[in-house]
Amino acid sequence: MCRWNAYFGQPVVVDELLFKTDHGLIDQSLRARMGVETTNGDGFGLGWYGSPDGRPHRYRSITPAWSDVNLRDLASHVESPLFLAHIRATTGTPVQQTNCHPFRHGRWLFVHNGVIAGFDAMRRELLLAVEPSLFDGIVGSTDSEALFYLALTFGLEDDPLGALERAVGFVEATGRKHGVEHPIQMTVGMSDGERLWAVRYSSERHSRTLFVSEHADALRKLHPDNPRLQRFTDEDRIVVSEPPGDLPGAWLPIAESTALIIQPGADDQRPFQPHWP
Amino acid sequence: MCRWNAYFGQPVVVDELLFKTDHGLIDQSLRARMGVETTNGDGFGLGWYGSPDGRPHRYRSITPAWSDVNLRDLASHVESPLFLAHIRATTGTPVQQTNCHPFRHGRWLFVHNGVIAGFDAMRRELLLAVEPSLFDGIVGSTDSEALFYLALTFGLEDDPLGALERAVGFVEATGRKHGVEHPIQMTVGMSDGERLWAVRYSSERHSRTLFVSEHADALRKLHPDNPRLQRFTDEDRIVVSEPPGDLPGAWLPIAESTALIIQPGADDQRPFQPHWP
Amino acid sequence: MCRWNAYFGQPVVVDELLFKTDHGLIDQSLRARMGVETTNGDGFGLGWYGSPDGRPHRYRSITPAWSDVNLRDLASHVESPLFLAHIRATTGTPVQQTNCHPFRHGRWLFVHNGVIAGFDAMRRELLLAVEPSLFDGIVGSTDSEALFYLALTFGLEDDPLGALERAVGFVEATGRKHGVEHPIQMTVGMSDGERLWAVRYSSERHSRTLFVSEHADALRKLHPDNPRLQRFTDEDRIVVSEPPGDLPGAWLPIAESTALIIQPGADDQRPFQPHWP
Amino acid sequence: MCRWNAYFGQPVVVDELLFKTDHGLIDQSLRARMGVETTNGDGFGLGWYGSPDGRPHRYRSITPAWSDVNLRDLASHVESPLFLAHIRATTGTPVQQTNCHPFRHGRWLFVHNGVIAGFDAMRRELLLAVEPSLFDGIVGSTDSEALFYLALTFGLEDDPLGALERAVGFVEATGRKHGVEHPIQMTVGMSDGERLWAVRYSSERHSRTLFVSEHADALRKLHPDNPRLQRFTDEDRIVVSEPPGDLPGAWLPIAESTALIIQPGADDQRPFQPHWP
Repeated sequence: MCRWNAYFGQPVVVDELLFKTDHGLIDQSLRARMGVETTNGDGFGLGWYGSPDGRPHRYRSITPAWSDVNLRDLASHVESPLFLAHIRATTGTPVQQTNCHPFRHGRWLFVHNGVIAGFDAMRRELLLAVEPSLFDGIVGSTDSEALFYLALTFGLEDDPLGALERAVGFVEATGRKHGVEHPIQMTVGMSDGERLWAVRYSSERHSRTLFVSEHADALRKLHPDNPRLQRFTDEDRIVVSEPPGDLPGAWLPIAESTALIIQPGADDQRPFQPHWP
Repeated sequence: MCRWNAYFGQPVVVDELLFKTDHGLIDQSLRARMGVETTNGDGFGLGWYGSPDGRPHRYRSITPAWSDVNLRDLASHVESPLFLAHIRATTGTPVQQTNCHPFRHGRWLFVHNGVIAGFDAMRRELLLAVEPSLFDGIVGSTDSEALFYLALTFGLEDDPLGALERAVGFVEATGRKHGVEHPIQMTVGMSDGERLWAVRYSSERHSRTLFVSEHADALRKLHPDNPRLQRFTDEDRIVVSEPPGDLPGAWLPIAESTALIIQPGADDQRPFQPHWP
Repeated sequence: MCRWNAYFGQPVVVDELLFKTDHGLIDQSLRARMGVETTNGDGFGLGWYGSPDGRPHRYRSITPAWSDVNLRDLASHVESPLFLAHIRATTGTPVQQTNCHPFRHGRWLFVHNGVIAGFDAMRRELLLAVEPSLFDGIVGSTDSEALFYLALTFGLEDDPLGALERAVGFVEATGRKHGVEHPIQMTVGMSDGERLWAVRYSSERHSRTLFVSEHADALRKLHPDNPRLQRFTDEDRIVVSEPPGDLPGAWLPIAESTALIIQPGADDQRPFQPHWP
Repeated sequence: MCRWNAYFGQPVVVDELLFKTDHGLIDQSLRARMGVETTNGDGFGLGWYGSPDGRPHRYRSITPAWSDVNLRDLASHVESPLFLAHIRATTGTPVQQTNCHPFRHGRWLFVHNGVIAGFDAMRRELLLAVEPSLFDGIVGSTDSEALFYLALTFGLEDDPLGALERAVGFVEATGRKHGVEHPIQMTVGMSDGERLWAVRYSSERHSRTLFVSEHADALRKLHPDNPRLQRFTDEDRIVVSEPPGDLPGAWLPIAESTALIIQPGADDQRPFQPHWP
C-alpha cells in the first residue's frame, strides 16, 4: 500500500514536488496528519536522471520520509528532468533499504504500488523464472522486486510494456495455479531515462488510483494565479498515486488497465493486456 | 503528541499489553490503520523494573514501533511487575534515541505526552535552572527531558509530586515571561520501581486524555468471558493515554489537574497544583 | 570475516561474556582499538534460550556492537543457559538486520564465520536446492543463510551434523562445477536449545580459528584468583572464534575439520566430513 | 579521534576524493583493513558548496561510511568546488546524526578532529557562554558542536580565526579552572563557501596531524603519469587529517599551532594563538 510520484519535463529541483506541494508525497507518508486512512512510513526512495552517463542516481532510506533530514537536504539540491519517488507501507516484508523502491537495473528504474497476493507461497516459483544471469541482482525480498526482475527477464529493455504484460501474465498464471483469484494489484512507474511509463492494472480490474497532470495550457487556465504553473510547459508531466491538494482540477485519472507513455513530443496511451504465455 | 502506557501489578509478559491487546500501544503507533487521526512513528521506548538491583532496564528505538522486529521479540520475553512504554510523535526535535522516552535517572523512569509551548525560545533558560551536577545527564534535546531534569533538580527523588509541581510551575512562569499563554500541556508517568505516578495537567486546563483501569472486581463483572481478566487482581493497574479497544467500560478517566499514585495497597489521588516559587 | 561466541552451562547474565570479559566479543567488533587487523562493524546478533516454550529469543542490529546502547542494556538483563552471539563483517552483501546472524528456524539457531567463495555465481543454484516449503523463510541475501537453509533441507533437525556435512558437500560440489577451488570456509555454531554444535572446516583445510574453554578444573588451577572461574563448573563451556584476553591458557583449539558436540554430560567430538551426494 | 578532508578548487565530483583515492577518507573509516590502528565507524558527514544561494548542503549518517550505500551514490553525483567530509569515532557522546560533523550555521560549515578533555564536567559552563540567540541551534551533545557555537558567539562570521582563538582560549581557561592540564586537542576545518580555514592546535602543542596538498606544479613533476594530477591546478587544494596512500610526496604537514587560509589567489598562513579574554 505505497504511494509514488514521477516527473518528466524541464529540469526542476526535486523538493518542488516532494516538499513544496501541499499534500505532496512527503505529507502522504504521514497522511494521518491529513485525516486520511493510511501511513506510508516503512521507507522512502528517490531515483533520478540527469547524469552525463545516463544512469540514474538513487537515494533510499528506512527512516520515515517525513522525518528524514537528509532527504530534505537532498531534495533541495537535486535538479532533474526525470525522477521517480516512492513511499512504502510494507505488506509484511522487512523494512530495509534493499526493499525500498525504486529498483534499479542499468538505466532502468521501477516503482510499484500494490501487491502480489499470495506472494509467500509462490515466491520461489517466481524467482526461479528469473533469467539466471539476472538472479544475483535480486537483493531484497519483496514481491515488487520480483515483478521487476520478471519483466527484465521477459525483455523489459527492448519492449517495456510487452515485457511487463508478460511478467504480469506470468504472475497471474502462477497465482491462479495456487488458487489465488486476483493475483496482482498494481500501479507501476518505470523509466529508462528517456521515456516514462505509468501503468494501472489489477487482476480484479479495480486498481489503485493513478493520475497524470493536465496539459499545461489547461492548467494555466485553471490556475491563473499560480506562479509555478506559469513555468509549466506542455512537455512537463507529473504522475501521482494520489493528487496533491493544491491543484484542484489539474489531474486526469489514468484509466483502468491502461499504460501511459510519456515521452518527448506527444504522449501515448494503450490498453495494458497481460497474457501468458 | 505521543502516547504512553504503564503497568503496575503482578508480573506480566510485556507483549500482553503492547501487542496482544486489541488497539494496544503498538497499534496506536500506526493508528491510521485504525481509522484515527494520528501517527506516532518517531520512536519508541520501553522501561521496566524487575532487576534484583532495583534499577530499570530500557529499550529505545527510532524505528517505528509497528515495524520493530527486535521490540516484538523483546516484548515476548520481558516479564515485569512495573513498566512504562511510550511512542513518540515529535513536535520538531530530532528523531534520535536520546530523544525517546522513558528518560532515566538512577531508579527513576519518566514519560511525557504533550509539549512545552515555545520551548525553543526558553530552552536555554530552562536548562540553566537544572542543578549543575545533573546537567551532564541531559543528552537529548527535547522539552520532555528538560522537564524531567527540572523535576529532579526540584527534588523528585524525595517528593515526586511536589517536585513536579515546582518544575511545571517554573516552566509556566518562564513561559509567561516569554508571552506564552499556555506554556505546558502534559500527561506524565513516572516511577521509582515501587510506586507509579500518573499526572494529567495543562496550563489551559484542557489536558490530553489519561485513563486508569477499573478495579479487577468491576472488570470481571463487565467481562465474565475474558480469560485475561480472570487473572487480573485488585493490585493490578494499567494507565493508558488512550484506551485499547477490547475492554469497553474498563477505563476510568483521570480527572483534569490530578495526580494518581498507584502503590501497594490502596491507590491515592490528589489535585496537581503547579506553583512557582 | 565475522566472529562469534557461544555459551552452554549454568545460567549467566549475557554481559559477563560480551562486555565484562577483557577483549570479549564486543571489543572484537572494534578490534582496531586492540591493535588487531579487522573490524566487525556490519551488524550484531544475539540468540538465546531459556524461554518456557523452548524457542530462542533474538536481538539483531545493524548498529556496530560497540556503540549499541540497547545491546548494552539487554546484555545486562538477559540471563540464559545457552546463547550464541555474532558480530558481522560483510563480504559484500548488504548491511541489514535480515543478514545478521544468528539465523533462526523453530528451535534452531545458526551462526557462521566464513564465506562461500563465488557465492554470487552459484546463489541461484543453491537456493533452488532448498526445500520449497522452507524457501519463504529465506529473508536475507547472505551465503550464511543459504547454508543454513540447505542444512535444514538436508535434515538438520533430525541429524544435525550429517545434514551440515551434506549441505557443505553440496556447496563444494556446486562450487567446483563453477570452477571454484576452495568453495567454503567456515566455523559454524548451532543449537536446538539442548545441545550446542561447534564445527570448524574449510575446503582448503585451513579454517578460521575456533576455541573451546578448558574444563573447569583446569581453569581453576590456572587462575586461582579469578572469582568468575570459581563459579565455573565442568558443565559450563564457552566457544569462541578468538580467545578473549583475560584467561591465558584457558582455551583449547578445536582441530581442523572437526565437530564438537557440547551437551549435558560428557561432550563429544568427531571428524567433520562433507560429502555429496 | 576522527578524520576529515576538505577540498577547495575547480569543481570535482566528490567521489574522486572520497572513494577513488587509494586509502582515501572512506578507507580510513575502516582503517583496520589497511593495517592501521583505528576505526572511525561512528558516523559520517559531508558538507558542500555550489548552490546558487551560497548555502551549503549536507549529508550526515550514523551508518559507518564504508557501508553507506546512499553515500556512495551521493558522492558520485555531487560536484562541488568546496567541500568538507568527516568520519567520526566518538569519545563517548551518542552516535546520532545531530552529533555528526560538519556542523552548519548559515553559510558556515565546521569540522573538528580532537577532543575537549574533561568536557563532561565543563559542558554546562561552555554552553552558558554561548550567545542566547544562538543557543537553540545546538541540537547535539558533542564538545565539537559546543566549540563551534562558542566561536560563533565570539564573532566567527566577522573574524573567523580571531573568534576561534577566543573560543579555544575560553575552553582552555575553563578547563584549567577545572584542573585539566591540556584542555583541547584539535584540528579544525571551516568555511563560509569562499575561503577554507584549516587549523592545527592543541594545548599541549602536540596536535593531531594535518596536511595540505603541494602546489600543482610540484605534484605534476612528482607524478608525471597520474592523469588526475594533470587536471590539478595551482588553485586546487586538498587538506587531509591523514594522507591518502597514492600520492607520495604530495603532502605538506601544516605546522603546529598554525592556521592555513585557502582562498582565491595566494593562500595565507599565520600562527594560531588562543587567548582569553
